[in-house]
Amino acid sequence: MARKIIIDTDPGQDDAVAILLALASPELDVLGLSVVAGNVPLALTELNARKICELAGRADLPVYAGCDAPLMRKLVTAEEVHGKSGLDGVELPAPVMQLQPQHAVDFIIDTLRREPPKTVSLVPVGPLTNIATAFDRAPDIIERVQEIVLMGGAYFEVGNITPAAEFNIFVDPEAADIVFRSGADLTVVPLDVTHQALTSRDWVETMRKLGPLGQAVASWTDFFERYDTAKYGSQGAPLHDPCTIAYLLQPELFTGRFINVVIETGGAFTTGMTVADWWRVTDRPANANFLRTIDRDSFYALLTDRLTALDARLRG
Amino acid sequence: MARKIIIDTDPGQDDAVAILLALASPELDVLGLSVVAGNVPLALTELNARKICELAGRADLPVYAGCDAPLMRKLVTAEEVHGKSGLDGVELPAPVMQLQPQHAVDFIIDTLRREPPKTVSLVPVGPLTNIATAFDRAPDIIERVQEIVLMGGAYFEVGNITPAAEFNIFVDPEAADIVFRSGADLTVVPLDVTHQALTSRDWVETMRKLGPLGQAVASWTDFFERYDTAKYGSQGAPLHDPCTIAYLLQPELFTGRFINVVIETGGAFTTGMTVADWWRVTDRPANANFLRTIDRDSFYALLTDRLTALDARLRG
Amino acid sequence: MARKIIIDTDPGQDDAVAILLALASPELDVLGLSVVAGNVPLALTELNARKICELAGRADLPVYAGCDAPLMRKLVTAEEVHGKSGLDGVELPAPVMQLQPQHAVDFIIDTLRREPPKTVSLVPVGPLTNIATAFDRAPDIIERVQEIVLMGGAYFEVGNITPAAEFNIFVDPEAADIVFRSGADLTVVPLDVTHQALTSRDWVETMRKLGPLGQAVASWTDFFERYDTAKYGSQGAPLHDPCTIAYLLQPELFTGRFINVVIETGGAFTTGMTVADWWRVTDRPANANFLRTIDRDSFYALLTDRLTALDARLRG
Amino acid sequence: MARKIIIDTDPGQDDAVAILLALASPELDVLGLSVVAGNVPLALTELNARKICELAGRADLPVYAGCDAPLMRKLVTAEEVHGKSGLDGVELPAPVMQLQPQHAVDFIIDTLRREPPKTVSLVPVGPLTNIATAFDRAPDIIERVQEIVLMGGAYFEVGNITPAAEFNIFVDPEAADIVFRSGADLTVVPLDVTHQALTSRDWVETMRKLGPLGQAVASWTDFFERYDTAKYGSQGAPLHDPCTIAYLLQPELFTGRFINVVIETGGAFTTGMTVADWWRVTDRPANANFLRTIDRDSFYALLTDRLTALDARLRG
Repeated sequence: MARKIIIDTDPGQDDAVAILLALASPELDVLGLSVVAGNVPLALTELNARKICELAGRADLPVYAGCDAPLMRKLVTAEEVHGKSGLDGVELPAPVMQLQPQHAVDFIIDTLRREPPKTVSLVPVGPLTNIATAFDRAPDIIERVQEIVLMGGAYFEVGNITPAAEFNIFVDPEAADIVFRSGADLTVVPLDVTHQALTSRDWVETMRKLGPLGQAVASWTDFFERYDTAKYGSQGAPLHDPCTIAYLLQPELFTGRFINVVIETGGAFTTGMTVADWWRVTDRPANANFLRTIDRDSFYALLTDRLTALDARLRG
Repeated sequence: MARKIIIDTDPGQDDAVAILLALASPELDVLGLSVVAGNVPLALTELNARKICELAGRADLPVYAGCDAPLMRKLVTAEEVHGKSGLDGVELPAPVMQLQPQHAVDFIIDTLRREPPKTVSLVPVGPLTNIATAFDRAPDIIERVQEIVLMGGAYFEVGNITPAAEFNIFVDPEAADIVFRSGADLTVVPLDVTHQALTSRDWVETMRKLGPLGQAVASWTDFFERYDTAKYGSQGAPLHDPCTIAYLLQPELFTGRFINVVIETGGAFTTGMTVADWWRVTDRPANANFLRTIDRDSFYALLTDRLTALDARLRG
Repeated sequence: MARKIIIDTDPGQDDAVAILLALASPELDVLGLSVVAGNVPLALTELNARKICELAGRADLPVYAGCDAPLMRKLVTAEEVHGKSGLDGVELPAPVMQLQPQHAVDFIIDTLRREPPKTVSLVPVGPLTNIATAFDRAPDIIERVQEIVLMGGAYFEVGNITPAAEFNIFVDPEAADIVFRSGADLTVVPLDVTHQALTSRDWVETMRKLGPLGQAVASWTDFFERYDTAKYGSQGAPLHDPCTIAYLLQPELFTGRFINVVIETGGAFTTGMTVADWWRVTDRPANANFLRTIDRDSFYALLTDRLTALDARLRG
Repeated sequence: MARKIIIDTDPGQDDAVAILLALASPELDVLGLSVVAGNVPLALTELNARKICELAGRADLPVYAGCDAPLMRKLVTAEEVHGKSGLDGVELPAPVMQLQPQHAVDFIIDTLRREPPKTVSLVPVGPLTNIATAFDRAPDIIERVQEIVLMGGAYFEVGNITPAAEFNIFVDPEAADIVFRSGADLTVVPLDVTHQALTSRDWVETMRKLGPLGQAVASWTDFFERYDTAKYGSQGAPLHDPCTIAYLLQPELFTGRFINVVIETGGAFTTGMTVADWWRVTDRPANANFLRTIDRDSFYALLTDRLTALDARLRG
């Protein structure tokens, strides 16, 4: 039986690839997309989410708009990375499918209360505003969550938006703090991992030879790569968000440690830092499976395999 | 002409090796040791400093006791690393030489005012309390400093005393803040570098075959290694402090970046962090040459060469 | 010659009375209103500002919309005090006059650059976002400001929105920090003063007997009073913002001290506090004339006098 | 039956008067004095405690030395208020009685475990280091405490050592945080109250006419008064610490509110502030009976009455 998940997302090119990978994977049953403000404002992220669904031939998938701003702070966006639309690189048609009338936070709460305990996992790949709001409003759902697998944070690779913080956590540190303290079963895919998951030219060209879906992935990657190449001098773009889906499908591709991770919300220069006690120098109890390595080649083989199959099915 | 330096120190086994390396190097003219509380309380660090001078045959070197506690915080020490004496591993005789009557902070101020501008460098390898106190009391000396080369901080390897902070900076973050904001020419040797400078069994055995000086170095290393091996699972002990002296002698063994580094003094979990803007994601101006790599083999070759020569000279 | 001022405002019933008092006073030449988000969102505060101008027969007064959110934080509003419109208590007609096309921050900058140095004063009675943005973007204007007289902060009476912070400063502490550090000539009217400036039933009834202008003031006061009466058990409503205009007109009604005042931006429970060194226990230099008392009866006599005259003029 | 109390103290002239008042009151059974570093270092405060006991004819009262430094910070003392000895104003003979061998923290723990639950009250009139250490080490004693009545903090009168903090709390804010979060029944006598309890010349002269005990009280008050007169321009000295004992004897002399009080430990300018939610603007639960007024004349009548009786008894 397929594993039920909700993807909480702020697309974002790499969010898009994560959604496509999930929809291409029979092991996963995506119950819906809950959308949040992050990479770009909510009006764009929810639009992008619907475009991605239609690209994947899934106009039936329910998409819910959620929080349009962090819990206590002003929204910081990342157009310098993702482009003005948040999904620059390829022009997708305006979506026909409608947003669901329900708020994403209510969707999350209702779903977790309706489904049997420990059968629904949350996969947040943007700021944690929706998840924290749901946990705050309905604490009873926390113990009903099967697992949270999120993209966010950094430790050895430290920050990308500030020297100490990764974007998703920095945007809403108070929300992250709520999630990391919640007690839910938590796996964290930090920059340390995703910076090992760089695209190669070969892989991009393989994607480009597929149909429209593959071509979109290739064009997004081209756009996305430009930023990291300039900043880090790296070859290829880190596909951050798809790593969460890959972890659900093939956890054996990853290594990590179950350690204490707290969110700094009060520092002058360190707000939004995921303070990970990797070397266990404190006596704070472990609360997160903090990943550290990824088998890059197997990860891209998985992506190629699943996206090729979905592309073929769509052209079928 | 030899380069004039003041070593500001809280010995410590690796401090001891740094002092020996400096005293063994004709390129350096060590004007004195200013001692501070850190690895162990001041009463022990100043005692240890004198023992090390006598071991090196330099009972004539002036040793000054300085601050016995951080500027604003309670002293945190590290007996679990350095042993109860701060210099566990070998029993050295009680020193005959006396402490200088002058306070270390006055020694630093007077020396910098007396010597021509930009001819004296400071080499702090402990908490920065003495240096910050001198800068605070006599701001005119700041521009007279030739260069500060300090051991402290961490970035990619992050903390050792907390998940976010390195010991020397953590013990007195307010002092570090003063030094990093001072405008002095600053080179930082962080844990990232020193964790690449691990001892090998071969090198320890080479030391042990020398006379009393080499045997002391070998015994200290044995003692010191035990801690890091247990904590990090590493092979060998990081000789943190001697890296600063090696940088003065052979800067070409190191790479780094001239970037902005600020000290977090206000975080809930991140106090004492050296927030290094390695990827230049802020617009804060560069203030430190933050080192990143060391040529380990050349570093140990340098150590062997100099310590062997000093050992031979002592045995005369 | 009348003194030139810009009122920076987020109306608000007490803002309205401040604007009316200024427009009723021949000693003051109001160059324009720069509007900011605060008591209610910007779309309402700029609408309210225009309604107030028309009520005062001053549809010619230029009104500029400014910042719609604090520098770094999410906007917090105060509908529980001011009502949903921000100006509850009386229904004013939709304004005919238009907003100026220019942004309020540009208006402030251009005006200060155009007018002779030290001839224009700023009277901020809302969050300091517009002023801080102008100072940040055009630091040259700071020394051209004649005087800033602001309503904000608290010391002995401490906070109203949190136990430690007053609303205007709490909403945008980073902006306040910029203004308090700017070096501009600064007078602060804190809650300590305005809580001495409570309306009386007699005064409200005097206002009500005037024409439409007086009746609006009376109705606003009725609405406004309800909140403070419930919270503090006080008799009457504090007319916070008009105190700034009264200070410009009759500074002899006030006492205060020229002391150091810093803004706490980093505390866990104290963010937005105006830390006023009333007893001079620190060595931080004085930067603000922090008011402490007001001659309440003379203040209300001034208000009655001026509003009665304006009301009469309007009824012509 | 007399009420059992432990006075936790750092004498201090006003501490001395508090101890004398307690020893003079048959309603109270002082089980011992636990001494802490604060106004002056521990070596002096424990010496002073013994001197005070002997002055009161109670060389039999057990005195225990406790913590010599705050939990995490460097000790700050107040010789400018209390003089170099901590008890300047009169020269008392060196004490003959010995310190108890037990540590004050152990005395507190053992006493609370030995006596029936809710029969022993704690009266801390210095930094809360001893109490916090006891609570931290033996959490089981917290619910055995009958009541804590402490002198510390400030709200409307805000700080004395910084603009935002009172001395006892500022010296060890982390300890105060532990005590205020402990859940113990807590009454706080802040500066707001004690600044209403100023000595008068008449009262001092009444004391001076008594025997040695009264003369010591008069001399201490003379010394103590000098500081507050210079700083606040007040007439008379605030007898801070005796207010706690007066509250135990005659609580009807005081008014206050049962509200939430939290300790700021993280602010840039507000560390050590007792953030008192007097107006109940937060939803944080009440944890302290925060006093606000004292009936000054009755307080001094009580002091006169009890000290006169004790003085007479001593002169026998």
